Amino acid sequence: MVWETEVENGNEEVEDTSVEKAFEGKVVPQWQKQITLRAMVVSLLLAVLFTFIVMKLNLTTGIIPSLNISAGLLGFFFLKTWTTLLAKIGMLTQPFTRQENTVIQTSVVASAGIAFSGGFGSYIFAMSSEVANQSPEANGPQDIKNPSLGWMIGFISIVSFLGLFSVVPLRKIMIVDFRLTYPSGTATAHLINSFHTTEGAKLAKKQVRVLGKFFSFSFLWGFFQWFYTASDGCGFNSFPTFGLEAYQNKFFFDFSTTYVGVGMICPYIINISLLVGGILSWAIMWPLIDAKKGDWYSADLKSSSLHGLQGYKVFIAIAMILGDGLYNFVKVLGRTFIGLYVEFFKKKARSSSDPDSSSSLSYDDKCRTDMFLRDQIPAWFALTGYVIIAVISVIIVPMIFHQLKWYYIVVIYVIAPALAFCNAYGCGLTDWSLASTYGKLAIFTIGAWAGASHGGVIAGLSACGVMMNIVSTASDLMQDFKTGYMTMASPRSMFVSQVFGTAMGCVISPCVFWLFYKAFGNLGVAGSAYPAPYALVYRNMAILGVDGLSALPKYCLIFCYAFFGFAIVINLVRDLVGKKWAEFIPVPMAMAIPFYIGSYFAIDMCVGSLILLIWRKLDKFSADTFGSAVASGLICGDGIWTLPSSFLALAGVKPPICMKFLSRAQNAKVDGFLES
Amino acid sequence: MVWETEVENGNEEVEDTSVEKAFEGKVVPQWQKQITLRAMVVSLLLAVLFTFIVMKLNLTTGIIPSLNISAGLLGFFFLKTWTTLLAKIGMLTQPFTRQENTVIQTSVVASAGIAFSGGFGSYIFAMSSEVANQSPEANGPQDIKNPSLGWMIGFISIVSFLGLFSVVPLRKIMIVDFRLTYPSGTATAHLINSFHTTEGAKLAKKQVRVLGKFFSFSFLWGFFQWFYTASDGCGFNSFPTFGLEAYQNKFFFDFSTTYVGVGMICPYIINISLLVGGILSWAIMWPLIDAKKGDWYSADLKSSSLHGLQGYKVFIAIAMILGDGLYNFVKVLGRTFIGLYVEFFKKKARSSSDPDSSSSLSYDDKCRTDMFLRDQIPAWFALTGYVIIAVISVIIVPMIFHQLKWYYIVVIYVIAPALAFCNAYGCGLTDWSLASTYGKLAIFTIGAWAGASHGGVIAGLSACGVMMNIVSTASDLMQDFKTGYMTMASPRSMFVSQVFGTAMGCVISPCVFWLFYKAFGNLGVAGSAYPAPYALVYRNMAILGVDGLSALPKYCLIFCYAFFGFAIVINLVRDLVGKKWAEFIPVPMAMAIPFYIGSYFAIDMCVGSLILLIWRKLDKFSADTFGSAVASGLICGDGIWTLPSSFLALAGVKPPICMKFLSRAQNAKVDGFLES
Repeated sequence: MVWETEVENGNEEVEDTSVEKAFEGKVVPQWQKQITLRAMVVSLLLAVLFTFIVMKLNLTTGIIPSLNISAGLLGFFFLKTWTTLLAKIGMLTQPFTRQENTVIQTSVVASAGIAFSGGFGSYIFAMSSEVANQSPEANGPQDIKNPSLGWMIGFISIVSFLGLFSVVPLRKIMIVDFRLTYPSGTATAHLINSFHTTEGAKLAKKQVRVLGKFFSFSFLWGFFQWFYTASDGCGFNSFPTFGLEAYQNKFFFDFSTTYVGVGMICPYIINISLLVGGILSWAIMWPLIDAKKGDWYSADLKSSSLHGLQGYKVFIAIAMILGDGLYNFVKVLGRTFIGLYVEFFKKKARSSSDPDSSSSLSYDDKCRTDMFLRDQIPAWFALTGYVIIAVISVIIVPMIFHQLKWYYIVVIYVIAPALAFCNAYGCGLTDWSLASTYGKLAIFTIGAWAGASHGGVIAGLSACGVMMNIVSTASDLMQDFKTGYMTMASPRSMFVSQVFGTAMGCVISPCVFWLFYKAFGNLGVAGSAYPAPYALVYRNMAILGVDGLSALPKYCLIFCYAFFGFAIVINLVRDLVGKKWAEFIPVPMAMAIPFYIGSYFAIDMCVGSLILLIWRKLDKFSADTFGSAVASGLICGDGIWTLPSSFLALAGVKPPICMKFLSRAQNAKVDGFLES
Repeated sequence: MVWETEVENGNEEVEDTSVEKAFEGKVVPQWQKQITLRAMVVSLLLAVLFTFIVMKLNLTTGIIPSLNISAGLLGFFFLKTWTTLLAKIGMLTQPFTRQENTVIQTSVVASAGIAFSGGFGSYIFAMSSEVANQSPEANGPQDIKNPSLGWMIGFISIVSFLGLFSVVPLRKIMIVDFRLTYPSGTATAHLINSFHTTEGAKLAKKQVRVLGKFFSFSFLWGFFQWFYTASDGCGFNSFPTFGLEAYQNKFFFDFSTTYVGVGMICPYIINISLLVGGILSWAIMWPLIDAKKGDWYSADLKSSSLHGLQGYKVFIAIAMILGDGLYNFVKVLGRTFIGLYVEFFKKKARSSSDPDSSSSLSYDDKCRTDMFLRDQIPAWFALTGYVIIAVISVIIVPMIFHQLKWYYIVVIYVIAPALAFCNAYGCGLTDWSLASTYGKLAIFTIGAWAGASHGGVIAGLSACGVMMNIVSTASDLMQDFKTGYMTMASPRSMFVSQVFGTAMGCVISPCVFWLFYKAFGNLGVAGSAYPAPYALVYRNMAILGVDGLSALPKYCLIFCYAFFGFAIVINLVRDLVGKKWAEFIPVPMAMAIPFYIGSYFAIDMCVGSLILLIWRKLDKFSADTFGSAVASGLICGDGIWTLPSSFLALAGVKPPICMKFLSRAQNAKVDGFLES
């Protein structure tokens, strides 16, 4: 799940005064010149960095904060340093423009986006035997497809490019005619614009320095922790901060700077929701259900069996996620259609009463619209691209997943553009991408169509991948067009950099996943360092889609219905009470995550919230200015530490010390044992 | 050992402008009114607090920083809060004056001083069987006297008051005629004077707030650590920060906020000296000597035996301490005599050339001298007091230590006033109290006089106590007189508050020691949380004095001579190269301490230094203003945590968790053991 927040230092007020007047003297380079070699090198570096971070988040909790600001800051920093250096030795041939900056931003976000939409923490890893062996159903050979570098790169490459072509023809309607807000894209554009003013550049420098400090701290802390993690259950990430009893129930602070940083970026209510979900499940429900062991379910099941307590955990979480997803699906689709309807009538009304509607536009919008419409991407190009890639895909994807028949794919590709349009439009209105919901839809429909006996599980999961990639890249591209529009970058350079970023992502993401998969032994195992919670959730959704509800333990279905309904009701209440009160009502989607993996990361995130809250109390200005830099530093430092740590693991270098936590009684026994 | 540093916010520059003019409107209350009930209550509270802190330091490393600033700040804070409160409800009968503040300061320092000079970490605890059993010599019943509340209170009470009377008649000579500086006393006076100006009071409030914050942090950190310390070798104070190998050799950061704070107060060179000493001994010498096991000394000795490696550790440390002590003894005595000689001639010269010498005095000095000479303490009172207490002492002390014959005590009491005078004078010149050196002198002379067969060890140690208390209180009192002189407090109120403080100390200190002794099982054991290093050092000095040098392992004597000479040479070099370079030459006394207990606390202290250094680089003003407040907070918070922690230990409440550090191989074994 991706939770985006508004960018603090690019708020709407800037709009009041003209931005473009400030840039009046600066020439906008031609679109080919906006895509420079140096921009591509920096993009590549940052793409690797952010892929590591997103992959780590994917495989630990699945919660991914918006990394746009970090990417923006770092991209600006690298290229600014580079050009300043060249300028000093008199070798600068082309100045650093905001268009170039937008190109970097677009490529990096596109590339890191693949790490999420590629499903390495969800549908792709859900096919593996590691995850399959946790449920007793559907773990025959036709229901398993283990990760391998070759097919992953192939599959991702094919499905990722399709989305790019599906919405290109619609960009004028969305950006110029409908003037959709695309909050994230707008925020990124503000950020980039601000960097290229003199004051903004100074502030950005300070922010980068803060980011660098916390990056180093976070990296060194990760390094230090490593020494004490000789095996599972050792080290700071097993620190029973609130006692051993609470630790058993996954309540502890695990000293992860990543999640403290994530907590600083995510809205308060998300962090609180996670904690509330954790308390509801691990402190109340699971102990109560555990007490029914032997009654509701057999007492001699393995703890990982889905017929026991684990089943309640997973399926109740799924029910809540689906309830929340359904609600938002209906809501966003509804708003999309209402929006389209209004737009249609408004346009008719406008064209009749005011023949030259562009005269009501601000100076900024006029400049930007001119620029945006100058470099066109022909519709025939987009259409041809879509058809060619679709044909290739229909031929090759069934070769990768023989369970996914070619006609399933054709069906998906026929309806996908409509869904992609809906998602891009909804995202423009609400900033909420429904990609994973459309993916889940594909799991259920294609899974059920294929049926259990024909490998419905793999068919469903791979269909999810196909669908999700199209829908997700479509909305991402439109966000980028909005950013490009506001920074006067050409749509062509935006498209090319998106293609470049996607291409990088298709290689980098599978490789990084492969590194994690090979380096850390027990990926996807509950309770380990990388539980990859969504993998099990996605697989079980596929099983549900194929087998129906028969697999659930006693009363589990009732719980599921209750929580499904609960998620919808809570969402409804959130929307009805108005924004003021909605801030105090938890988000069901966020509550569901700790149901399965526990609330330790929720505690980290709440610590992050707390730090930000206190910081704001003490010095609001500095907290607002440097908060995201600190958070980015914390996330990036720890994230990049996984790179050397995975190499150490691959090289067989193991940490020398185990920091172990024993109860007093156990300790006495161990001391006796060690002395003897 | 006590290392005093200059008080930062009371530096000499203040002297340039008249302080007393600022206080001109304020009436100095009568001396009886300077000693109020509220001042006594606050003194009692703070005396308990600081006794705990000093006792903890005594029993862990023996390094005690100057706590005057903390005492000053807290004393001011408590009484100011109290009087402000009373003033608000209109019940204030007497305003808070700086004289009253001086009274508190004097009582608290006198009382906490007993915790050090009472020898609970040195000569008194050295008599116990816990320490005696660590050396094979002289551990018969006549060489052991176990601590007991009764005799400790009795002994301390008798010997502590004697010093007060011994130098009272000399106060006019030292303060008014010789105008000795007494750096600590002067600094304290500056501090108190500054508190009672409007600006100073504001600053003090801020400092107290900082102190309070770090106090809370340090206390809570101590509390948090407690939970993970189920047994020896558990918890943060056994954290192998630099790896297990380094931990074996006592190189680790033990997360003690006390010693980080102590490091912030002690001069940089002391901290560096400690670290250099630790590296020299534990990283170089001990491993080399350990390699000679079986050759230089028997391989099957217990690790605590003084005939093995432990012997080298203890005796080389003693040699260095004695070398340093001897050098400083000669130096300070030399300066004392030269000073007296010059003073004598200067006075003669002055009285002949300038009949009214007081006209050359500043306004401040005139006011202060007037005040100082107004309330006299008659010489007959001091003399009578001295004789009466001496007689009581000669009768009672031999009843406590039957090994210490009455005529030894008479001899001590005859020469003590001369030594007390020398010490008070030397301290006035150099701020260096030689009390413990005079104490060691008593150990050797009285111990040798009594002889081994007549319990020379106990005789020597108790003689040390008698001597040290007289000499130490004499110099302390003179410091207080200086403070009183500069804050216009009456000498009578100073004397009374010193008596009051000493009386408190005579009860509080033994009780606090008793609490530690009963609560923490293995006091004085090498490697435990409370090794009380000086106890073993003092006992072995006594054994050396009685038995001579026969007890040492092979080549140890050569090492001792070498380090004895080394200490003298280093000191000589320090004095010869001038102040600029002396800062970079280690202090031998400081180097000797880690020889025995290892350098973990030296690492803490260097961390404190480092923090201060960086802070000064970033913001010199704030570091200089709030550095001591932060340090005091860290020391006091952790120190006061020992109060609840000792009560928990007495009540039998043990920490629930052990945070253990195992090597990877050990961990695998333990995991196997726990699973089976």
